[in-house]
Amino acid sequence: MATVQAWAQMEPHGKLQPFTYELSPVSAEEVEIVIENCGLCHTDITALQGGFGLPYPLVAGHEITGRIVALGDVAKTKGLSIGQTVGIGWNKESCGHCDPCLNGDAHLCTRLKATILGSHGGFANRIKAHWLWVIPVPEGLNAADAGPLFCAGITVFYPLLEYGVKATDKVAVIGVGGLGHLAVQFAHAWGAEVTAFSSSPAKYDEAKKLGADHIVSSRNTEEWESLKGHFDLIIVTVGVTLEWDKIIAMLSPKGRLHFVGIPFESIPVSVLSLLVPQTAISASPAGSRSAFDKMLRFAARHNVRAMVEHFPMSRINEAIEHLESGKATYRVVLDVDL
Amino acid sequence: MATVQAWAQMEPHGKLQPFTYELSPVSAEEVEIVIENCGLCHTDITALQGGFGLPYPLVAGHEITGRIVALGDVAKTKGLSIGQTVGIGWNKESCGHCDPCLNGDAHLCTRLKATILGSHGGFANRIKAHWLWVIPVPEGLNAADAGPLFCAGITVFYPLLEYGVKATDKVAVIGVGGLGHLAVQFAHAWGAEVTAFSSSPAKYDEAKKLGADHIVSSRNTEEWESLKGHFDLIIVTVGVTLEWDKIIAMLSPKGRLHFVGIPFESIPVSVLSLLVPQTAISASPAGSRSAFDKMLRFAARHNVRAMVEHFPMSRINEAIEHLESGKATYRVVLDVDL
Repeated sequence: MATVQAWAQMEPHGKLQPFTYELSPVSAEEVEIVIENCGLCHTDITALQGGFGLPYPLVAGHEITGRIVALGDVAKTKGLSIGQTVGIGWNKESCGHCDPCLNGDAHLCTRLKATILGSHGGFANRIKAHWLWVIPVPEGLNAADAGPLFCAGITVFYPLLEYGVKATDKVAVIGVGGLGHLAVQFAHAWGAEVTAFSSSPAKYDEAKKLGADHIVSSRNTEEWESLKGHFDLIIVTVGVTLEWDKIIAMLSPKGRLHFVGIPFESIPVSVLSLLVPQTAISASPAGSRSAFDKMLRFAARHNVRAMVEHFPMSRINEAIEHLESGKATYRVVLDVDL
Repeated sequence: MATVQAWAQMEPHGKLQPFTYELSPVSAEEVEIVIENCGLCHTDITALQGGFGLPYPLVAGHEITGRIVALGDVAKTKGLSIGQTVGIGWNKESCGHCDPCLNGDAHLCTRLKATILGSHGGFANRIKAHWLWVIPVPEGLNAADAGPLFCAGITVFYPLLEYGVKATDKVAVIGVGGLGHLAVQFAHAWGAEVTAFSSSPAKYDEAKKLGADHIVSSRNTEEWESLKGHFDLIIVTVGVTLEWDKIIAMLSPKGRLHFVGIPFESIPVSVLSLLVPQTAISASPAGSRSAFDKMLRFAARHNVRAMVEHFPMSRINEAIEHLESGKATYRVVLDVDL
């Protein structure tokens, strides 16, 4: 039984405070890790703002990297070893025997357990997870900066892999933020022709450096006229309301509008606007374990990196304010000093 | 130069009247056919109700079967022969050199010409079309009844082919009408487990005979509760407003809601409801030439038949009233007596 040092929210909208709790020994399929770094994701902010109705004390954090310190009897047969550098993302447990699990889509498990929904997450110095979701960090990635790949990274990489995007495709990335700056890098490394849509001219140069071939204003929709029927894939990485009819009109025949950001309002879809060019609208959450492994190796090989600012975890409240202010470029990673 | 005998609408909402016009000789890529039968599709009714803003005189009809009587110099090199029994559907010409055409997706051609949009259609005794869209009727199909396959048939068959539907999939067909009664047959012959949604208990027995494994009321949405997360593919064949959130909830992980009917109102889509189970919404218009050939051979091999009532074309106004009244089971075919 280990005592965990953590930072927890104790009441709605409260600042995070030091908090300790006991971690039971690993069961057969579990792995325990000592956390070294944990990314701070907008979804953590949503949780801390009460968005998921989670109970208190609330320990968020789901972009975890660290080292294995204990392996259950089953887990130790799955290629993991004590001391190994690993990461944990949004999901921490799946059942292994439902249809999606048996299909290799454990991220769609019907009994899926998310890292911060129902248990304490990564703003802490220890955590346990099912072995499937304790994912080795490959050589060539700096684990201290890799946390965001375990949520933001897989989220934007997965559609490229899952939907058969080709290096000859035209890919649009809407929003160059925490998700978008990784989407631009991945799509560029994938060989696609990448157009970044940003509301902030200040980000144009950076988006080009990240690999965008073209930059388009996400505010000046007149620019969009010339892009009608243009994109094979449009990845929406933001959660704001946009002119969806005009965005759908930019899809090429058989194109796909794919959401990884979640707009708060329903989007109105004209079926006729999908039917004539045979387009689709879809969305996906994180990705499968196989996709994780491929994403990490791809990131290492192509030097895809989350741009991160580090804060010691003891300054977590300051880090949260920094992210909320919109000043972070582009992800914040907390270094455990508990 | 041939004189065409046709039935045309001469003014908004007018009854159809006999009408003649001249057909110029075939150009290089054109094929001329003598029409023997023409299905009456709801889209023709929409056109006659002014839905497409077409000019007058208006000759509708786009579920055409007949025999080739003339071949242009290029068309005669494409495997077609004088006297051959062929069909023509919604599309009559594509450019051959745009991206979709070069990809084998001529139904998404950027310069596509539809049979009744911009020229006179099949309520007539002759028509010309580009050779690609003059499609041989294979052995084993009764050409006189096959007209509806060239619009309704391809429309519901195409998603099975295009989206990789498997014989192990659970497929729902919403609406057992002109489109739906073919969708049920095709999905059944495909080997899938078919659930038909119908608002009409009178159709339940027939839907079972057509191949539905299960029948569900499309009105009593309480029945839908037990089908949450159930269907790999839901094909919407109707154009009415339904409880879309509940329909989306019936999709399995990675499931697809596919429209071939066109609801008049936009459908409100909650991105979160797509994201968690990684589902998609899509729509498609008719199908590619390759899909046409596969569909016709599949229909012949599996005895998939449009259920049709025949009217002589001279009783076309009566036939239209019959279809509009909702009494047709399920398609109406006009036999040319011009």
